Amino acid sequence: MKFSEIVEKFATELVRGTSLTAHPDFNPQVAGFASLESATPNTLSYCEGGKYAAMVGKTAAIALILPVNEELQTLASDRGIAWVSTPHPRLLFAEAISLFYQPYQPAPHIHPTAAIASSASLGRDVSIGAHAVIGENVKIGDGVCIFPNVTVYPGVEIGDRTLLHANCIIEERTKIGTDCVIHSGAVIGCEGFGFVRSDRGWVKMHQGGIVVLEDRVEVGANTTIDRPPVGETRIGYNTKIDNLVQIGHGCKIGSNCALSSQVGLSGQVIVGNGVLLAGQVGVANQVKIGDGAIATAKSGLHKDVDPKQIVSGYPAIPNKLWLKISAVYNRLPEIYKVVRKKMKQDG
Amino acid sequence: MKFSEIVEKFATELVRGTSLTAHPDFNPQVAGFASLESATPNTLSYCEGGKYAAMVGKTAAIALILPVNEELQTLASDRGIAWVSTPHPRLLFAEAISLFYQPYQPAPHIHPTAAIASSASLGRDVSIGAHAVIGENVKIGDGVCIFPNVTVYPGVEIGDRTLLHANCIIEERTKIGTDCVIHSGAVIGCEGFGFVRSDRGWVKMHQGGIVVLEDRVEVGANTTIDRPPVGETRIGYNTKIDNLVQIGHGCKIGSNCALSSQVGLSGQVIVGNGVLLAGQVGVANQVKIGDGAIATAKSGLHKDVDPKQIVSGYPAIPNKLWLKISAVYNRLPEIYKVVRKKMKQDG
Amino acid sequence: MKFSEIVEKFATELVRGTSLTAHPDFNPQVAGFASLESATPNTLSYCEGGKYAAMVGKTAAIALILPVNEELQTLASDRGIAWVSTPHPRLLFAEAISLFYQPYQPAPHIHPTAAIASSASLGRDVSIGAHAVIGENVKIGDGVCIFPNVTVYPGVEIGDRTLLHANCIIEERTKIGTDCVIHSGAVIGCEGFGFVRSDRGWVKMHQGGIVVLEDRVEVGANTTIDRPPVGETRIGYNTKIDNLVQIGHGCKIGSNCALSSQVGLSGQVIVGNGVLLAGQVGVANQVKIGDGAIATAKSGLHKDVDPKQIVSGYPAIPNKLWLKISAVYNRLPEIYKVVRKKMKQDG
Repeated sequence: MKFSEIVEKFATELVRGTSLTAHPDFNPQVAGFASLESATPNTLSYCEGGKYAAMVGKTAAIALILPVNEELQTLASDRGIAWVSTPHPRLLFAEAISLFYQPYQPAPHIHPTAAIASSASLGRDVSIGAHAVIGENVKIGDGVCIFPNVTVYPGVEIGDRTLLHANCIIEERTKIGTDCVIHSGAVIGCEGFGFVRSDRGWVKMHQGGIVVLEDRVEVGANTTIDRPPVGETRIGYNTKIDNLVQIGHGCKIGSNCALSSQVGLSGQVIVGNGVLLAGQVGVANQVKIGDGAIATAKSGLHKDVDPKQIVSGYPAIPNKLWLKISAVYNRLPEIYKVVRKKMKQDG
Repeated sequence: MKFSEIVEKFATELVRGTSLTAHPDFNPQVAGFASLESATPNTLSYCEGGKYAAMVGKTAAIALILPVNEELQTLASDRGIAWVSTPHPRLLFAEAISLFYQPYQPAPHIHPTAAIASSASLGRDVSIGAHAVIGENVKIGDGVCIFPNVTVYPGVEIGDRTLLHANCIIEERTKIGTDCVIHSGAVIGCEGFGFVRSDRGWVKMHQGGIVVLEDRVEVGANTTIDRPPVGETRIGYNTKIDNLVQIGHGCKIGSNCALSSQVGLSGQVIVGNGVLLAGQVGVANQVKIGDGAIATAKSGLHKDVDPKQIVSGYPAIPNKLWLKISAVYNRLPEIYKVVRKKMKQDG
Repeated sequence: MKFSEIVEKFATELVRGTSLTAHPDFNPQVAGFASLESATPNTLSYCEGGKYAAMVGKTAAIALILPVNEELQTLASDRGIAWVSTPHPRLLFAEAISLFYQPYQPAPHIHPTAAIASSASLGRDVSIGAHAVIGENVKIGDGVCIFPNVTVYPGVEIGDRTLLHANCIIEERTKIGTDCVIHSGAVIGCEGFGFVRSDRGWVKMHQGGIVVLEDRVEVGANTTIDRPPVGETRIGYNTKIDNLVQIGHGCKIGSNCALSSQVGLSGQVIVGNGVLLAGQVGVANQVKIGDGAIATAKSGLHKDVDPKQIVSGYPAIPNKLWLKISAVYNRLPEIYKVVRKKMKQDG
């Protein structure tokens, strides 16, 4: 593909109002995409600036997506590299990848070994892989793609164009919106961990509620999302969940959140919109997290978090305070030495 | 169902010796169950008191399970809500749910696509779902329900009425008791992480032991329980394990424990009866945890824990001390300031 | 098997240059293997010395693998126990187990229910279990064993003698070396968590790279290893990964590492050779960990770690400092008391 064709395709809605500046003369043929480091003389790469800027002087790429930075533009031009500049290099690189690569997806086809209940309804252009199992009264929208060995329990609804990767399990009555992606091995709609103490040990509380995924939700491999005893567990529009995450019964997560790998939410956690939870964060029962809040990796949230607050640590505290404390923390032995001396002086 | 019928069914063994008090006049028709917040005028709900008490004045529920609390009884009566009082509202609500809702379970039936070894023995009224695979010499008790895409390795024993949810994997020679529930994607009896260092790198130690689950054990979705090189990994009677938990080789867990999501036990951990491990707790090799002990969320246990002790933190310490320290922790920068001044004064 | 036969088989390459000393007279028949504690009068056990030494005086074992320790040799002889001494008792015990026990592996056979694409190529002596699904252009080496309900996406390559346990998923274009073991439910080669912020929320960055496992890699049950947008995620020779581990997109892990359960690596983490990461360790994006480094359980690594360094804590610091701090940490309330008094004195 000619570099000019790629740049034309960038006239994208995602960056409306952004003017692209491209080098007017160079228009090489681009065969694929790569990182700055591993680029070859026929690949496109990108640079976000900062510590990666120096790589522009070394990369073997034939074309680059650059930030709006005259120095880098000149450097690229001097090296005979075609370039386009944008305030969003990473975003454009994501689009460039899509021009060359699409993840594997089987063509619409019902594999003869799939076990589909007679009461299930299928939309148009559906793909159902080998040995997939579709339960009674399941409703599957148009263009849905179900990979092999998936199990869908009765009463589930799956919106148009949603993908269910291999061996994932969608349990009873779960509702999945349109354009969702459920990765391999994920379990959606399983029973919440509901037990009540009694004199005779744990008694099970059945989980009569459901899980609802709104449109464009993505759920990572081997992640688990529980249904509650009553009502819903709900994941909002365009929220992205990484691998091995646990979402407890009755949680409500807003739209455009990102939950990194191994995050765990207990029961009935309320998460606003645009919240970021970094890897291995844990959140206690019924905690509320405000819009735009961020919890850094491994933090443990026992109390509500205000909108836009950044928290860290366990128990989680404001990130700025945590950074201050972390700096002093290493001096604890020294501090103790002084204090002990003082204690001895005072008798 | 009439409210009076529900209350009669509460004459349960679980709360023997507990006298229920019910409003004598109101006896509405109840169509289902809901939380206080989302109740509609034909649903039953429950209140445990405390911060939820105020909801009794607002809920749309037609009937309530209340704590023994005259004020709440009067408030409900005044609002025309039928009620029953008990010291265990949550326990009775669990029973009420069971009157209206049972989780999906297929009727006894062997799906024609299930691959069952000829040497496997099946009890009466067994259900085996589509594409399930049952290995040689597997013994399956009466009323067992195996969902689709489950894999059972050779030599496994499964007790009466146990449920294996979709796509779970039971590896060689595992013994599962009666009335257990194994949730989707769980892996029971896989090889422990047994490697020995040598001059030539890691050498595998084969894991010749087995995993034993006693009766009424529940294992969460995508949880993994390893078999040891020798002897057993054992989970005691009525112990409940949440999703994404790791149980290492040779652990012995007592009865009526609850292990929350993402807990990790290393090898040969010994856990007593009635122990609670909250979310993301980690326990080091060979640690012993006494009966009735509690570890709060995210704590890391490197040393033995006495019976009934509550521990927190990493490394875990008594919870009361940890709370005290957590309160002071935030003042570390302030403390350091004072100490540094003192150090300067002292030269 | 006669004890002398077992000892002869220990003339192993793994301990070349190590001389074994065995009791010359006792040569009992050995029927199996057990721990010191649970041994019976026809089993072999082993002792590493230290706190286990006392067990040599009590064990019912008929034969023992001992450390080079005259006292223990005499004690065993006095009790009529056959023994062999070596500097590596655990390593030899691993070999002894292999003489009596091999994990279950089906004989070479293609199950008639397996769904194998016509363009897939299979080596000699391959085993493919019931309901396994093998995609287009997959290349499977000699002696490969694929358990039931496994899904292999198109374009995957699997080296000789590699085992794929039940219900694991190998996604598009993954390359797996020879003699690897992938445990049940693991997901290899799934899409990395690649999203770019835009004014319209998260935009997906497709993951066009691949995952490469070198020879002799072992991947635990329900572990997930992501493919990157460009290039490779690579796991080095003989590296062992436990259950429920997350390896993010673009990580490069060296040879002979061990990653314990529930470890999480973010994107583009670089791990050297012979690195140990204990349970629940988390590593931030792009962190580099030097050869032979160790991170103790639950630590959180935000910065690079030097070769052979041992780190602990969150954020991780040198282990020795962390131990010092942990000792003082419990005295924080006491320290604060002194400091507060001082502050009052100073006004």
